Amino acid sequence: MRTEQRRIAEGILFTDQYQLSMAQLYFRHGLHERTAQFDHFFRRNPDYGMHAAGYCVTAGLEWLLDWMETARFTDEDIAHLRSQRDRAGGQLFADDFLAYLRATEGFAGLRLRAIPEGRVVHPGVPLTTVRGPLAQAQILETALLNQLNYQTLIATKAARIRDVSHAAPVLEFGLRRGQDRGANAGTRAALIGGADFTSNVGLSSILGLAPKGTHAHALVQVFLALGHSELDAFRAYAEVYPDDCLLLVDTVDTLGSGLPNALKVFAELRAKGHQPVGVRLDSGDLAYLAIQASLMLDQAGFPHATIVLSSDLDELVIWQIQTQIVQEAPHYGADADAIMQRLVYGVGTRLVTSHGEGALGGVYKLVAMQEDGGDWRPAIKLADTAAKLTNPGLKQVWRLYDQRERATADLVTLEDERPDGEECLRLRHPSDATLQRQLVRANLARIEPLLIDVWQHGERCGSRPTLEQMRERRRADVAALDSGVRRLVNPHIYHVSLSQQLWELKQELLAELRGASGK
Amino acid sequence: MRTEQRRIAEGILFTDQYQLSMAQLYFRHGLHERTAQFDHFFRRNPDYGMHAAGYCVTAGLEWLLDWMETARFTDEDIAHLRSQRDRAGGQLFADDFLAYLRATEGFAGLRLRAIPEGRVVHPGVPLTTVRGPLAQAQILETALLNQLNYQTLIATKAARIRDVSHAAPVLEFGLRRGQDRGANAGTRAALIGGADFTSNVGLSSILGLAPKGTHAHALVQVFLALGHSELDAFRAYAEVYPDDCLLLVDTVDTLGSGLPNALKVFAELRAKGHQPVGVRLDSGDLAYLAIQASLMLDQAGFPHATIVLSSDLDELVIWQIQTQIVQEAPHYGADADAIMQRLVYGVGTRLVTSHGEGALGGVYKLVAMQEDGGDWRPAIKLADTAAKLTNPGLKQVWRLYDQRERATADLVTLEDERPDGEECLRLRHPSDATLQRQLVRANLARIEPLLIDVWQHGERCGSRPTLEQMRERRRADVAALDSGVRRLVNPHIYHVSLSQQLWELKQELLAELRGASGK
Repeated sequence: MRTEQRRIAEGILFTDQYQLSMAQLYFRHGLHERTAQFDHFFRRNPDYGMHAAGYCVTAGLEWLLDWMETARFTDEDIAHLRSQRDRAGGQLFADDFLAYLRATEGFAGLRLRAIPEGRVVHPGVPLTTVRGPLAQAQILETALLNQLNYQTLIATKAARIRDVSHAAPVLEFGLRRGQDRGANAGTRAALIGGADFTSNVGLSSILGLAPKGTHAHALVQVFLALGHSELDAFRAYAEVYPDDCLLLVDTVDTLGSGLPNALKVFAELRAKGHQPVGVRLDSGDLAYLAIQASLMLDQAGFPHATIVLSSDLDELVIWQIQTQIVQEAPHYGADADAIMQRLVYGVGTRLVTSHGEGALGGVYKLVAMQEDGGDWRPAIKLADTAAKLTNPGLKQVWRLYDQRERATADLVTLEDERPDGEECLRLRHPSDATLQRQLVRANLARIEPLLIDVWQHGERCGSRPTLEQMRERRRADVAALDSGVRRLVNPHIYHVSLSQQLWELKQELLAELRGASGK
Repeated sequence: MRTEQRRIAEGILFTDQYQLSMAQLYFRHGLHERTAQFDHFFRRNPDYGMHAAGYCVTAGLEWLLDWMETARFTDEDIAHLRSQRDRAGGQLFADDFLAYLRATEGFAGLRLRAIPEGRVVHPGVPLTTVRGPLAQAQILETALLNQLNYQTLIATKAARIRDVSHAAPVLEFGLRRGQDRGANAGTRAALIGGADFTSNVGLSSILGLAPKGTHAHALVQVFLALGHSELDAFRAYAEVYPDDCLLLVDTVDTLGSGLPNALKVFAELRAKGHQPVGVRLDSGDLAYLAIQASLMLDQAGFPHATIVLSSDLDELVIWQIQTQIVQEAPHYGADADAIMQRLVYGVGTRLVTSHGEGALGGVYKLVAMQEDGGDWRPAIKLADTAAKLTNPGLKQVWRLYDQRERATADLVTLEDERPDGEECLRLRHPSDATLQRQLVRANLARIEPLLIDVWQHGERCGSRPTLEQMRERRRADVAALDSGVRRLVNPHIYHVSLSQQLWELKQELLAELRGASGK
């Protein structure tokens, strides 16, 4: 795509045609400036096939706001829209509607509240609420879902990989397997969700992180092709990077050639007063090779040398490698814990594509419309199954912490409810009328509102959080989960409940709509 | 990401750190200007879990070339690299190396050959070859793989969906589920691979296509929330778009409300001299509902009205829907063929994410290095399995067509071989020494070289192909495949063979390397 095309394809026309068709209809019927509220939420956690997530980690909001700050209808955008034809050959979008779009100043009329990036979130909870003129709120849908769905998906996968990796560093390597420039969003989300560093140079630069990476198989191949050896390649590397010497040892033969050559070079480095960093294993039986590499490094006097593992890793593969190391290390007289403590995980394709579930089904649903007089009319969307019904009205989300400071449930209430002031909380299951529980306020350590203002009057509210702040939220929120919810496979289901008031509103609207439709 | 950050993250620093670490090593050892050749290829077709592709469709090249035209090291990029530190606290990238990067003019020194976009391609065949100064070729790897892997993955999925959809229009709807702006690349690849139109407004604008889309559930919800009805919403739509009236009928109740209301509005339109377009079904049992909708439309006198299906469609779901329609339509007195001919498929998430296989494992491997004297030294990469060995040397790819003009095999040869002039062709299996076959030239209708020059002297060779040209290549190439190779599930394996000369070179290098490594 050429640069001038990028301005069109990545600006405010980064949307679906039906948003504009609907916007024109609202305009024609005088509804475009009516205040509406849409909720953004997802219905279920990612299910990776053999295993499912027990929670998600939000991400993408700040980049969405960056986009909103600059997105507006330019003359060029308007010209493209004006050129669209209806089937009768006429202009699809009329000039008065286009003049309205041109005058909107993008999304200046909207007010967004959201659960900040890096927080643990659950199905059915509004992650973002959008309030404002109906036409603007409608046009925003596509870009909002695009940004928040993908980054949340990847932050979630990264959080799982982070969790299984315990204290070991996790490196993100997925740039070659992401979707075009969208891979940068994947890198960012991975860093929020749990990756410590990335190989992505550009993204590291803008985030102020040190990008990670040493050499690929190509380096050894170049030396071999020119009649030199793997050892020559390693020596060349050590010469240029004496204090950052991490060698990829599987180009020729990991145990027979790569590791022995690396150890020679490490000894030479040590003799010159440098500390080698370690080795990387990128193929073969990584658990077995990690044990052997660890033994060889120890024996050669490099007990602090790192072992980086890569090659289609994800949370289950890492877990399996760890399990195998624990089981097999003793057979070789090795200490499994010591091996584990020197491991670093390099994760590429399976993180940036969220292997097993390549999309988060986040949706954007109308929950209320303001009437002429200013009163809100709640909206609900019928569905085949009770679980797919939307929750109507203007809402707030509260996280309830028990005395251990563990998150015990998220409570979705109407916006003006104040559950923190109530003595006894009644929690209703979102769709099953028979399930409810009562919580005594005194038994809760804390009740925290999750949605905060993030966008108003055409600009973000408050300052941009740093990467470290987002990571800190994620660490705190993951730590506050019960271990059953964090379980990699078959996790315990975290409770998301409705307040009694919201539940009653939902039932009223349902009865009304079903009565009307005879369903 | 802010605009000024985008310049960094999407420019030449859109690469992995190790490409730069290696480039500096090459520079330090005087190898950076040595001419190298890298091949880009993939090892296996996408495997979607329950089913695998029998071929791929290339895409992404023109956007890669667009990027290469503008990518070069700016002062800002250099400043970011200069700020990187090694573990001893020193400057990781030295000033003389940075000065060299600053002076390279991006990728002006490289020459690329490639199989053009839209062509059918197979595992193990070089899709792109990159020749030029080693450092430049190394730095290009990440961006090349990023662009070509993803778009080829999506064009392939789209081609499968195209194939199963026969003559029915296919619409791409995936913008909300792609990776950030990378979703645009997905849209483009889908259009090359088989989608007719897309809902993506910006991308349609730059490609000169009409974006598709009418309305979402939100439209009906807005009317309901304001105390109006679904019928009111449909009438409002018909009023604004009398000649483009396609109504989404499942917001309330497809059979009980949506379809009857749509038919009322269609009759009103007809009375005013307009032709309604049709309905969209987005939930429920799509096969059953398509039959019922078709019957209702026929009965109301709209035999030409379209039925758009959407809701997590992919090639298997479409196939299943068709199968069910064929089986069940007669029970309702409906004509299955007539129903099928009025269907349109809207495909979103599962196309843009390539459901079941979210990445193509395309790799970029050194295949030759030029010596001081100008002679080429072929390179090979050892691997655990014979199938993962690379094919060494400078190569060309030839497609062999039999007398029926069907593609019967791809033959990979050394660059200077001319198989079209030989009487008898010997085809070797890439890794199994016992498998070979002979083809008599006279029995072949045509032998076509596939790799052509696409980039030299810092610019593209020839003109940019149009979308229609790329689609025409895809149509012709898919039509030239045996039906077994096109099969959706368990496809027949297309033959990719090596010439005798290439086979012998590979064996020589293997023997040499394995002798050297004792493996």
